Amino acid sequence: MRAVTFQAPFEVRVEEVPDPRITAPGDAIVKVQATGVCGSDLHIYHGRVKIEPGFVIGHEFVGTVLQTGDHVTRVKPGDRVLGCFQTACGRCFFCLRGLFHKCEHSRTFGHGATLGDLAGSQAEQVLVPGADLALRRVPESMASEVALFAGDVMGTGYHAVVDAGLTPGDSVGVLGLGPVGLCAVQAARAFGAAQVFAIDSVQARLDLAQSFGAVPLHLEESDLRQEVRAATEGRGLDVVVDAVGDPRALESAIRLARKCGTVQAIGVYAERCEVHMGLAWIKALRLHTGHANVIGHVDAVLALMQAGRLDPSPLVTHHLPLDEAADAYALYDRREALKIVLQP
Amino acid sequence: MRAVTFQAPFEVRVEEVPDPRITAPGDAIVKVQATGVCGSDLHIYHGRVKIEPGFVIGHEFVGTVLQTGDHVTRVKPGDRVLGCFQTACGRCFFCLRGLFHKCEHSRTFGHGATLGDLAGSQAEQVLVPGADLALRRVPESMASEVALFAGDVMGTGYHAVVDAGLTPGDSVGVLGLGPVGLCAVQAARAFGAAQVFAIDSVQARLDLAQSFGAVPLHLEESDLRQEVRAATEGRGLDVVVDAVGDPRALESAIRLARKCGTVQAIGVYAERCEVHMGLAWIKALRLHTGHANVIGHVDAVLALMQAGRLDPSPLVTHHLPLDEAADAYALYDRREALKIVLQP
Amino acid sequence: MRAVTFQAPFEVRVEEVPDPRITAPGDAIVKVQATGVCGSDLHIYHGRVKIEPGFVIGHEFVGTVLQTGDHVTRVKPGDRVLGCFQTACGRCFFCLRGLFHKCEHSRTFGHGATLGDLAGSQAEQVLVPGADLALRRVPESMASEVALFAGDVMGTGYHAVVDAGLTPGDSVGVLGLGPVGLCAVQAARAFGAAQVFAIDSVQARLDLAQSFGAVPLHLEESDLRQEVRAATEGRGLDVVVDAVGDPRALESAIRLARKCGTVQAIGVYAERCEVHMGLAWIKALRLHTGHANVIGHVDAVLALMQAGRLDPSPLVTHHLPLDEAADAYALYDRREALKIVLQP
Amino acid sequence: MRAVTFQAPFEVRVEEVPDPRITAPGDAIVKVQATGVCGSDLHIYHGRVKIEPGFVIGHEFVGTVLQTGDHVTRVKPGDRVLGCFQTACGRCFFCLRGLFHKCEHSRTFGHGATLGDLAGSQAEQVLVPGADLALRRVPESMASEVALFAGDVMGTGYHAVVDAGLTPGDSVGVLGLGPVGLCAVQAARAFGAAQVFAIDSVQARLDLAQSFGAVPLHLEESDLRQEVRAATEGRGLDVVVDAVGDPRALESAIRLARKCGTVQAIGVYAERCEVHMGLAWIKALRLHTGHANVIGHVDAVLALMQAGRLDPSPLVTHHLPLDEAADAYALYDRREALKIVLQP
Repeated sequence: MRAVTFQAPFEVRVEEVPDPRITAPGDAIVKVQATGVCGSDLHIYHGRVKIEPGFVIGHEFVGTVLQTGDHVTRVKPGDRVLGCFQTACGRCFFCLRGLFHKCEHSRTFGHGATLGDLAGSQAEQVLVPGADLALRRVPESMASEVALFAGDVMGTGYHAVVDAGLTPGDSVGVLGLGPVGLCAVQAARAFGAAQVFAIDSVQARLDLAQSFGAVPLHLEESDLRQEVRAATEGRGLDVVVDAVGDPRALESAIRLARKCGTVQAIGVYAERCEVHMGLAWIKALRLHTGHANVIGHVDAVLALMQAGRLDPSPLVTHHLPLDEAADAYALYDRREALKIVLQP
Repeated sequence: MRAVTFQAPFEVRVEEVPDPRITAPGDAIVKVQATGVCGSDLHIYHGRVKIEPGFVIGHEFVGTVLQTGDHVTRVKPGDRVLGCFQTACGRCFFCLRGLFHKCEHSRTFGHGATLGDLAGSQAEQVLVPGADLALRRVPESMASEVALFAGDVMGTGYHAVVDAGLTPGDSVGVLGLGPVGLCAVQAARAFGAAQVFAIDSVQARLDLAQSFGAVPLHLEESDLRQEVRAATEGRGLDVVVDAVGDPRALESAIRLARKCGTVQAIGVYAERCEVHMGLAWIKALRLHTGHANVIGHVDAVLALMQAGRLDPSPLVTHHLPLDEAADAYALYDRREALKIVLQP
Repeated sequence: MRAVTFQAPFEVRVEEVPDPRITAPGDAIVKVQATGVCGSDLHIYHGRVKIEPGFVIGHEFVGTVLQTGDHVTRVKPGDRVLGCFQTACGRCFFCLRGLFHKCEHSRTFGHGATLGDLAGSQAEQVLVPGADLALRRVPESMASEVALFAGDVMGTGYHAVVDAGLTPGDSVGVLGLGPVGLCAVQAARAFGAAQVFAIDSVQARLDLAQSFGAVPLHLEESDLRQEVRAATEGRGLDVVVDAVGDPRALESAIRLARKCGTVQAIGVYAERCEVHMGLAWIKALRLHTGHANVIGHVDAVLALMQAGRLDPSPLVTHHLPLDEAADAYALYDRREALKIVLQP
Repeated sequence: MRAVTFQAPFEVRVEEVPDPRITAPGDAIVKVQATGVCGSDLHIYHGRVKIEPGFVIGHEFVGTVLQTGDHVTRVKPGDRVLGCFQTACGRCFFCLRGLFHKCEHSRTFGHGATLGDLAGSQAEQVLVPGADLALRRVPESMASEVALFAGDVMGTGYHAVVDAGLTPGDSVGVLGLGPVGLCAVQAARAFGAAQVFAIDSVQARLDLAQSFGAVPLHLEESDLRQEVRAATEGRGLDVVVDAVGDPRALESAIRLARKCGTVQAIGVYAERCEVHMGLAWIKALRLHTGHANVIGHVDAVLALMQAGRLDPSPLVTHHLPLDEAADAYALYDRREALKIVLQP
């Protein structure tokens, strides 16, 4: 089959690879109809996440089930399904507590040997271990390119807001308006935030956030603290989502949060960095970290998208055939797209 | 001053009563601009809640602070404020746990000696003990007749949904579309319910619920269980709000809830009744009871109304001068109104 | 193999039945070393729970894994394991939310066709579907007859207290001191209750509860409300566990609970009954119902028993060979035992 | 009256100061019977927390109410009471949410002008604003030097464990066995931890922790990660309390926590520092910060101490007359004491 493979930093290629085969009773094979290019793919593209040359990449997908192992019960051949970006075993310490994102046997699609050696979804077909957990049937009326978001970006926006413990009536800030930040803006609005402040330095993204109901604040042109104080009787924000993953964003989040507020660091941190623990401590903040529990949230996200309460469709800026993956990556790398959907 | 007094079942009268006076350092006196007639007032009107003849009734109000005691710090003369329907001390076991609705020293406006002997708000002025807890400043842009709802009906709708522990993506049912049920419908939608089923037998109320985003289900003309099952893969509802307070509603709520779901009995129960404990138990339901913690929620409700996320204005069906209170009660008793606002 | 079968009300028999066989990749077969007789078994014995004559009964067991299916990863032949009283699929809506006790595909050991047609554990061998969820390895130092409790009675005591949301420092009441009530007493003490009131009319059970740190209150000889009020500044109990499952116990629980308290109805309700909803409502109680989520709690319960924080050993009053099961049931039916352990 | 005043770093003095006077209706005056010297006092003693020379210090106290203002209802002259280390207004945004430790009008005893200009408790008398919140009656049977702990150190141990969301059966680590760490060890055991690892480099403190039921781990002589892994099937700890307040302790806490675990930083952080955000993030940790909500917990702590479930008495190593305060500070500074009780 045809698949997108990583070759070297800034070089991906569509090439012929062997078709996947069922090897365990919980496996399924999905014929891919739509697969996304995501910010995480850029980490691979840039060489920051190291994977084997020739490894098939991609981890967002919707398609049709071709075949299932003997143990699979929730999906069957012919079903249109969406995939979560990682798998889970359903049986370990973490899965039994609903912490599927930290499953002891989790494998991430398209991230090489270190994250489970599982071929990615930017391909004509994809093998899905633990299909009952990682796949969900897509409601008939939902576009595939919308469903795609439930297994990664919108699941992450949902997680950012729900894991932060939003209480209806809260004031929320979102730092960084990439796809995840924009989904977090939507989720905060949909789950009862009274005010959502969306912060970035790209005007188009601020405009999009505003169209989702947020108050846009330009990172350089606004006095963030002043704006937030004026809107919160001087207290600061109940919840701040750091959708950047950068020490300056974290510092800003800590500054904008009210006493006893929550900072949700959904943006990726990979290293040590300086944190203003003194300010966090005197404010008695809670700092939540880590990537999203997408498998834990996927049913809720699908229900909300089906009801139109969450709607990622404005984020889809480009459609390209799978064979033009190299162009797609280059385009995404130039930050000209929010979400590119590849179609095999 | 002029005030509405209870005289006998089905008889209220506007008469001259003494002006209120500050007697404790936490007191305030509010000049009333708008005061509502509420379903609870009907209980008094019908004689089911017994109060002393001549007692001033009413417990929903917005007005201007005239005077405050020495201990009051959060409001000052001249502020436009809304009142909660009950007061709280802020210092007892329950208040320290945020359970202001069960304050050991709580007094309810306009409910006679048994609920704290506190004159009601359907009057030109009202005395407010514990003003720092029971009053809140009204944002300048908010109409008084909207603010009125934060202290009672919308606070109750908020409570019904939040106390039930709604998770975004849930399916919710609301039984009974009086003002509280309609506010619960709005709250469920605003806080992330994917589906809200609004159940009643009055078409106009079903239409209003539908305009708030709910799926209307006519109590007699729909097969409730069938509709709910079809929409929830056969499981039933995550949360069911009983906004009626009747054993048949409770039975229906228990039947419509999914296993491990929550039934929120916000409608008033005053007696023993038969409950299908067997069905509740085999489903492992949680049954939450009691009236709303309005003081605990009032800031959030105000913020959501100011942001337009909750909007009780469609519920205001009638405006009348205070002097026409007798007509107002008769009209409300004929179920011709959802909310009547009296203006002194 | 030899197994205990139900024949007719008040008649169980040890007879020869076919050995179990693996039929699904998630199955395991366990050679039973110890199996309990439980209060639920009495419901079968009395004919209240209807099962097929000749059905193998029993649902508490510890033993050694003989064989496993291809999909089983957490236990292997030779492991000493304990079983939970029911199985779960790990993949349905409820399992994904950690609500294993309401799994859509759950089967209960030894309860006939209506609860999943799964042969019981009072036998030389037992088939365990979904072995990765329903079995746990027993720590080497733990006696089998202690481990037995983790999969049913102590798991239920744990659930009663944790599901009620106990906050350290709370005052707790436990109504009914059968094995579940006594385990709930232990759990309440171990999880930070400041006071535990243990209520029953059997002196020996009151004495046992007292030895676990509770204040014993004789149901008929004490003035329960007076005792509770005196110990709680007149407020009542934060949490009341109804371990009886009888309308009078529920009424008592509602009366003893403080405003905004929780009544945990862990005792079985199977029918409609009169409930003092008026009192529950004015107190704003929460009523939690249903049987325990034993699979969800079993790791924690094992850890606590291994640490000696929970210790069911005083509840084991009798040991008998499996072949004397008929005598064991008769003895249990005469209420002469708390827990009988049968050894094949 | 006689009182301990700060003069200069390493210099405190007992001198004559004016008696306190009631100035607000919520005030009370307490005649001090016992007052503690605490780790926070050392920050003042060392000059790290800057306060005015001549300022009366101390913030732990038990005594008898001498006089109350008109608004005080929960205590009366003659009551033996304990004081919390800070006051709260009971009416602001934070108090209404039960976040008394972040009250907008809070004042801390004995910490100079920057923390509310409130004279300390190491004196013959102490003025207590907001007496209904900051004072609690002491049960008759409780020693004053035990009650003393409820308002500061044991309240902090309670907070560390409860705020971390301990689930019964969890494994807990406590880094730093000063008085707060030792109280956290007690609390973790009393609230259902299956295992508590107590970590320090002072053998006497390790021995004390062991006597409280913990597994002692010597900071330099143990391989912490190896010990923790061996006891948790390689996962790490569910909850880690950092009772030190030092970047190395925080790094250690992050390393010892399991995926999705909680690090409770109850030790004081006052500055920026390097944090291993990459490790925290990949583990999806929650980091909770800030000092304890003592007013929120004081009733529970008192109940648990009265029941003997928490017992700080082994921490009281020294009793001295108030007049020997200078010696007491010197002795505490030499780390020869865990808790010194001064008696006026």
